[in-house]
Amino acid sequence: MWGGRFLTKDNKLNNSYETLEPLFNPKSVAILGASESKYKIGYLQVKALLDGQFSGEIYPINRKAKEIEGLKCYPSLSDIPNDIDLAIFCLGAEQVQQALEDCAQKKVKAAIIFAAGFSETGEEGVKQQETLTELARKSGIRIVGPNCVGLVNLSNGLIGTFSPAILSVPLNDQRGVGYVSQSGAFGVLTYMAAAQNGLSFNYFVSVGNEMETEFSDIIEYMIHDPKTSVISGYLEGAKNPDKLRSLAKEALDRNKPIVVMKTGRSIAGSRAAVSHTGSLAGSDKVYDAFFKQSGMVRADDYEDIISFSKLFLSNKLPNGRNTVIVTSSGGRGINEADRCEAYGLNIIPLSSKTTTEIKRFLPNFASASNPVDLTAAASVSNPELFIAPLRALIEDPDVDNIIFTEFPFSWTAENPLLQEFIDICSRSNKFVFITTFPLDGMSLPPGTPELVKNGIPVIPGNLNPIRGLAKLVEYSEYYRKNQEANVFNSSKKIEKQRLQSLLEPGTTLSESQASVILERYQIPTTKRVIAENPEKASQHANKIGYPVVLKVDSPDIPHKTEADAIRLNLKNDQEVKKAFNEIKRNALNYKPDAKINGISVQEMLPDGVEVIVGASKDPVFGPVIMFGLGGIFVEIYKDISFRIAPLTRKDALEMIEDIKGKAILKGTRGKSSYDIEAIIDVLLKVSALVTDYKDSIEELDINPLIVYENGIKAADAMIVVGNKVDDKATIRG
Amino acid sequence: MWGGRFLTKDNKLNNSYETLEPLFNPKSVAILGASESKYKIGYLQVKALLDGQFSGEIYPINRKAKEIEGLKCYPSLSDIPNDIDLAIFCLGAEQVQQALEDCAQKKVKAAIIFAAGFSETGEEGVKQQETLTELARKSGIRIVGPNCVGLVNLSNGLIGTFSPAILSVPLNDQRGVGYVSQSGAFGVLTYMAAAQNGLSFNYFVSVGNEMETEFSDIIEYMIHDPKTSVISGYLEGAKNPDKLRSLAKEALDRNKPIVVMKTGRSIAGSRAAVSHTGSLAGSDKVYDAFFKQSGMVRADDYEDIISFSKLFLSNKLPNGRNTVIVTSSGGRGINEADRCEAYGLNIIPLSSKTTTEIKRFLPNFASASNPVDLTAAASVSNPELFIAPLRALIEDPDVDNIIFTEFPFSWTAENPLLQEFIDICSRSNKFVFITTFPLDGMSLPPGTPELVKNGIPVIPGNLNPIRGLAKLVEYSEYYRKNQEANVFNSSKKIEKQRLQSLLEPGTTLSESQASVILERYQIPTTKRVIAENPEKASQHANKIGYPVVLKVDSPDIPHKTEADAIRLNLKNDQEVKKAFNEIKRNALNYKPDAKINGISVQEMLPDGVEVIVGASKDPVFGPVIMFGLGGIFVEIYKDISFRIAPLTRKDALEMIEDIKGKAILKGTRGKSSYDIEAIIDVLLKVSALVTDYKDSIEELDINPLIVYENGIKAADAMIVVGNKVDDKATIRG
Repeated sequence: MWGGRFLTKDNKLNNSYETLEPLFNPKSVAILGASESKYKIGYLQVKALLDGQFSGEIYPINRKAKEIEGLKCYPSLSDIPNDIDLAIFCLGAEQVQQALEDCAQKKVKAAIIFAAGFSETGEEGVKQQETLTELARKSGIRIVGPNCVGLVNLSNGLIGTFSPAILSVPLNDQRGVGYVSQSGAFGVLTYMAAAQNGLSFNYFVSVGNEMETEFSDIIEYMIHDPKTSVISGYLEGAKNPDKLRSLAKEALDRNKPIVVMKTGRSIAGSRAAVSHTGSLAGSDKVYDAFFKQSGMVRADDYEDIISFSKLFLSNKLPNGRNTVIVTSSGGRGINEADRCEAYGLNIIPLSSKTTTEIKRFLPNFASASNPVDLTAAASVSNPELFIAPLRALIEDPDVDNIIFTEFPFSWTAENPLLQEFIDICSRSNKFVFITTFPLDGMSLPPGTPELVKNGIPVIPGNLNPIRGLAKLVEYSEYYRKNQEANVFNSSKKIEKQRLQSLLEPGTTLSESQASVILERYQIPTTKRVIAENPEKASQHANKIGYPVVLKVDSPDIPHKTEADAIRLNLKNDQEVKKAFNEIKRNALNYKPDAKINGISVQEMLPDGVEVIVGASKDPVFGPVIMFGLGGIFVEIYKDISFRIAPLTRKDALEMIEDIKGKAILKGTRGKSSYDIEAIIDVLLKVSALVTDYKDSIEELDINPLIVYENGIKAADAMIVVGNKVDDKATIRG
Repeated sequence: MWGGRFLTKDNKLNNSYETLEPLFNPKSVAILGASESKYKIGYLQVKALLDGQFSGEIYPINRKAKEIEGLKCYPSLSDIPNDIDLAIFCLGAEQVQQALEDCAQKKVKAAIIFAAGFSETGEEGVKQQETLTELARKSGIRIVGPNCVGLVNLSNGLIGTFSPAILSVPLNDQRGVGYVSQSGAFGVLTYMAAAQNGLSFNYFVSVGNEMETEFSDIIEYMIHDPKTSVISGYLEGAKNPDKLRSLAKEALDRNKPIVVMKTGRSIAGSRAAVSHTGSLAGSDKVYDAFFKQSGMVRADDYEDIISFSKLFLSNKLPNGRNTVIVTSSGGRGINEADRCEAYGLNIIPLSSKTTTEIKRFLPNFASASNPVDLTAAASVSNPELFIAPLRALIEDPDVDNIIFTEFPFSWTAENPLLQEFIDICSRSNKFVFITTFPLDGMSLPPGTPELVKNGIPVIPGNLNPIRGLAKLVEYSEYYRKNQEANVFNSSKKIEKQRLQSLLEPGTTLSESQASVILERYQIPTTKRVIAENPEKASQHANKIGYPVVLKVDSPDIPHKTEADAIRLNLKNDQEVKKAFNEIKRNALNYKPDAKINGISVQEMLPDGVEVIVGASKDPVFGPVIMFGLGGIFVEIYKDISFRIAPLTRKDALEMIEDIKGKAILKGTRGKSSYDIEAIIDVLLKVSALVTDYKDSIEELDINPLIVYENGIKAADAMIVVGNKVDDKATIRG
């Protein structure tokens, strides 16, 4: 399945975020199934809109009731004299289709459908849902649900949900974070936890079965929504990864961070695969690559969503990783410093100038090194001790980030010291934030709203804010790179080559067959000839020049070493003939029914660094490229990196940077560097090849690919061809 | 500093936990500096004992006051007619010495000293503290502090602290967890956070400056205290690591888990070191080794302390890693499953029998695979859905652990379903616990006390309970191994060898010098002779037999490859002579003032797997052993493991198991296994060597040590000798 499942059949309705406007900002809402009974969803929903002081018109629909909570009721949609933007279905599954037809009739623009009982229940439900989808598309109705918790917009009081949990959360000021969730229950829990930690999402959308509108449609709306500064989400599986990827780029261009919690690492499951790449590319690793390539920020938990959002809301981007901790408890200081180092932030030693400056104001038993320990006196009796060190650290050009692990409780909004603290921070481009110890009633000091308003996040320590800072630094680096010209484009256009005669559907290609394909894409391979008997082999060897290598050439024996069907460094005719016979015998012993094309006679390549470049087809993202050092580095250390094709030059470079073994490629112990440009070149060519033939090539391994100080050569290769071969020109973006 | 700093000079007072009894269970307490003024520590302390309903006598000491809070005051200690077990000093630093002298006079048995202003302030303070220590030891007074927050014993109401934070925590039932902290503030925060999450420590001890009584003394007391089932602590640096290590063994024998948060990973700092081992052995890695060897459980954060303690309190040990999640939110289920996999627990597929059994009772849209999703209906309207799956999972022999991510709020203590749930769990040896979503007022369901009482922990998800379960499984494995005979002993006694003539103080030994030492401990080395000129070299080569290796032999050139002063696989006289000259020239170019003993002519060893065995001296723990695969595996992948000497056979085995590269040693792709017994043998011999000469040998590298299918050989070695050489017989434990 190659994406696009949720693009419309006629490619018309679903490609505009503007048509989602009636979902988020309806002028009028009809509640189908409104009820007088206080325990029914149809009542809770009416009440929710009233409690939320929804700014538009509310029309409860109820066949019998005259009014609900003082609002006039209408027996049916068609009885309403005015236009309806949004219909909220408080109805059982069996009533949904008729109601949707009524909506079409009434030209309602959008709907929220809570009812469960559709595609999640099996075949019958899938069919019913398809009927609804068709109806919605034909009539242009945008729909959230079914099987969802609804939609909330805090800026206009549209509380489009029945969830008592969400209703119980006080409506804080809107704060610029939109939230979209593929799980209703988890979404609600996160919404509540955020509110309890001082963060109200301005939008909450539970997408349910994603019948007509899906995850990335909501993201798209939020990207274009001026009230949203940070987009967050909970994702179990991307329905339209291509769209999500291009949206991520758009968001990055606008510096609108997308923080997404992607679950399902554990249920990724491995597929049966022939190639190394295929067996190593678990889908979670591919998601990781997706996040890296797109600039989206991956959250691992609901705590991350809250703390990352709070940090990103500050609207300041850190300049680097150099971090100073200011604490009034030695223990907490060390603990937070440990976390910083664990997440790749640097706890830097302070300059003697800064140390001296801090010491001037601190008592002699305090510590002016990093972590700066103001001692318990600071938070309890001498809160002014917070000011002088801050001033000194702000002046220090080596410092990028300053983290306070406490904040004086006596500094209320009116306290001049709070204002002084804020002023110092505001005049600087350093990133300052406060991470508190999460005790009931103590995690958000009284100054919090004033601090947050001025771009200084206050985050309870249990929400992982230090990891959040590390993510913000990464995002900031990525954002700045994005602003540089062309890093996202590959340097040269690689032409699509015609391969139809070479890609026999449903087969595994032997080394010699695969090599021909690589050569078409100008990837250097070894000189080789296939020999049918020992005499021919030694003739070829003489032409190629000794020493030579002999290997079995068979689509059925991809791992030649395992079959003992490869001989290196053969120096004369006699050795070649002996090797020929041994290889043939071993190959047939290993796999008696193997189809053997012959024995391949090849030049013996000089030593270099062995790397592996591979590709496999991910069920969600399509062709995925792998890179790593060969041999045990792949097998034991799993020192590999993935990116989704097509690769940009930046992707290819980062794939090499991602692996620990890059140190070997860059030359250790005074050894000179290997040809990294040549690796990038092969990566981009493989990316072009598997993108051109994404419907045909299931798996590809170049293993080993031997890298020299100058140049590179594929010493072995295999390709698995799928059952369908498509040779039409495709577009590579 | 080789441990023992806190052992007493006369080795008498400090080695018995029994003398700590008056600190924890005094019959009478005198409060020095008791006060009528409600804001003074001297008042708060009196009030705390009264509020705690302390079971013993309370004697406030105040020169003027007649009574405080209804208790009769005494003008001085000597005026009290009865014996005093414990004195609590609510006094400034300047009054402490006189007061301690008074205590000695009165034969007070123990004291708590809050005052700061001693060793933490510098030289003068260190001296004052030493005077106090001497006084305390002479008079046999056990002391907690100075510079501490005090001591709490919830079983007798001894609230020996002034901390308003601790006083604000309600006194729950005692629950069997003792807690000792090297940080006052962090200790108090953890104490409060634990209480807010339903866990009261039965003891809280802030050890402050550890003047007379230190961290491990308190641990020792708790090990012998029948009221303590789990010991927890916060540690910045062990003052007496040897004692802690032997206590850990004792605790393990008694199945009394010790959970310790050790901070300071980031400030470990690296020392200048000549050997690989020296530069890689950061002190935090050595602490990790310490935890692994001792069976103590390392916590990374205060959350870990709370959740690990709660899990360990259940008093059940998991049988393995096979884990099933039961949830009523698909999202939470996946999220917790991800965490399980991340921490090394197995989310197993359920057998068809179990699946069928679960399906019989669940609605058709629920999921009977793992995670088992009961859907929202379970927690809200049909809580009885929790029972049937539990019963089926308890019956399944493949399941070790069952985690519920929700628990019905309607199940109060009287609810028969709660009792049924508990009964099912109690009759099984499977580990069951509940991890809740941490929302205010929702994280501890009403059934919690009943569940906990019956060994079913209930832990808010933000406290990392899944990591806790993984740690509990590890502990359980360790505990069971400990019960097997002899795994902690090395298999044979290795005699101490006399080396005094070989260990010249303050020098680095060349390969040939180091090899002689290795040979004394029967570690196999290469055949070699030192040649002074090219002719001698070729003569030696002929005797040894071609091919040979030539290397510079110099204490000043430990890294021969870097100096290009090594030539391998020399096949004849001519090659040897040429190599001799090149090596000499390169060595002198590399380091013109190097002392060169000559050029070492050695047998050329056949290929094998290159490993490295090393030792270095840790400032806290003394000699530390390192093991890893050689070359880039050490340098780039840091695939190494550490243990503190002396090693047991179990330690040596685990060092090999710890590294990823063990797969190579065990034979990959059908290759046969290498001689792992020989590696263990070398590890134990090196351990013996550096333990025998722990005052002399600063660093040691055997690199490479070449391992064969049968046998092993040290191909190169170096030793750094410290300034002091002690050749006396030492005891190895």
